[in-house]
Amino acid sequence: MSIKGQVQGVQQMIEDEKYCVDILIQLSAARAALGKVSAIILKRHVESCVVGAIESGSEEEMTEKIEELVQVFSRYN
Amino acid sequence: MSIKGQVQGVQQMIEDEKYCVDILIQLSAARAALGKVSAIILKRHVESCVVGAIESGSEEEMTEKIEELVQVFSRYN
Amino acid sequence: MSIKGQVQGVQQMIEDEKYCVDILIQLSAARAALGKVSAIILKRHVESCVVGAIESGSEEEMTEKIEELVQVFSRYN
Amino acid sequence: MSIKGQVQGVQQMIEDEKYCVDILIQLSAARAALGKVSAIILKRHVESCVVGAIESGSEEEMTEKIEELVQVFSRYN
Repeated sequence: MSIKGQVQGVQQMIEDEKYCVDILIQLSAARAALGKVSAIILKRHVESCVVGAIESGSEEEMTEKIEELVQVFSRYN
Repeated sequence: MSIKGQVQGVQQMIEDEKYCVDILIQLSAARAALGKVSAIILKRHVESCVVGAIESGSEEEMTEKIEELVQVFSRYN
Repeated sequence: MSIKGQVQGVQQMIEDEKYCVDILIQLSAARAALGKVSAIILKRHVESCVVGAIESGSEEEMTEKIEELVQVFSRYN
Repeated sequence: MSIKGQVQGVQQMIEDEKYCVDILIQLSAARAALGKVSAIILKRHVESCVVGAIESGSEEEMTEKIEELVQVFSRYN
């Protein structure tokens, strides 16, 4: 995950008092990068936990996982 | 869905040349309302289609639904 | 502003029980459209009110407008 | 800027294979933190560069700065 590097880069730009618009563009790039990692983690989550809950046949577990998934989605939209 | 009403309200504000900041606040409220509807539709989607695909036992169908779900998530984050 | 039409279209899709993923894609398109209108209104706001406040020479008015602009930005990011 | 720490924390959580939903919540928190930094930088930008351009009396410089500001806003909304 190179996002740490991106965030470090932004921090350096702020310290060096680089042009604000350039900093803002880098900040939005770091945000987009976090969004991409989120999509990967979400995929992993659905493939393992959500599928597992549905396959378990437990109505309760399934409902809980779906509820959780919608909560996560709501944080991002 | 009262979002249509919200959008109509914003349109009226623009025509009436209301204060821009007030229009922008209403626009962000309409966006948030769309986000809430999206969460409801997503929930319905997971509960029916995604669960259905997983329960079908078809690896292919399941993979397709998960892929689609991640695509949708990516549009929003 | 055809966003009203877009929102109406989404509403129809929901009533017609169209495929949820298609509805979600239309919802994200409507959101993006609201974002574009917001950018236009923001531009108009800066060109008139913010420039006006800065040109007025009133420190207080200028500070107020900048504060307001940052508040608006924060609602969107 | 503690965002670097937050990103590092998320990276650790991924390596430790923590629960995906907890990772997703931390990722959205890091995104929100980047949004807050962006608002601070935007404020600094308007207070210095945009105000400077408007006060310069150069129509061209002012137009350029406003255009740039709207571009930045569009990246975030």
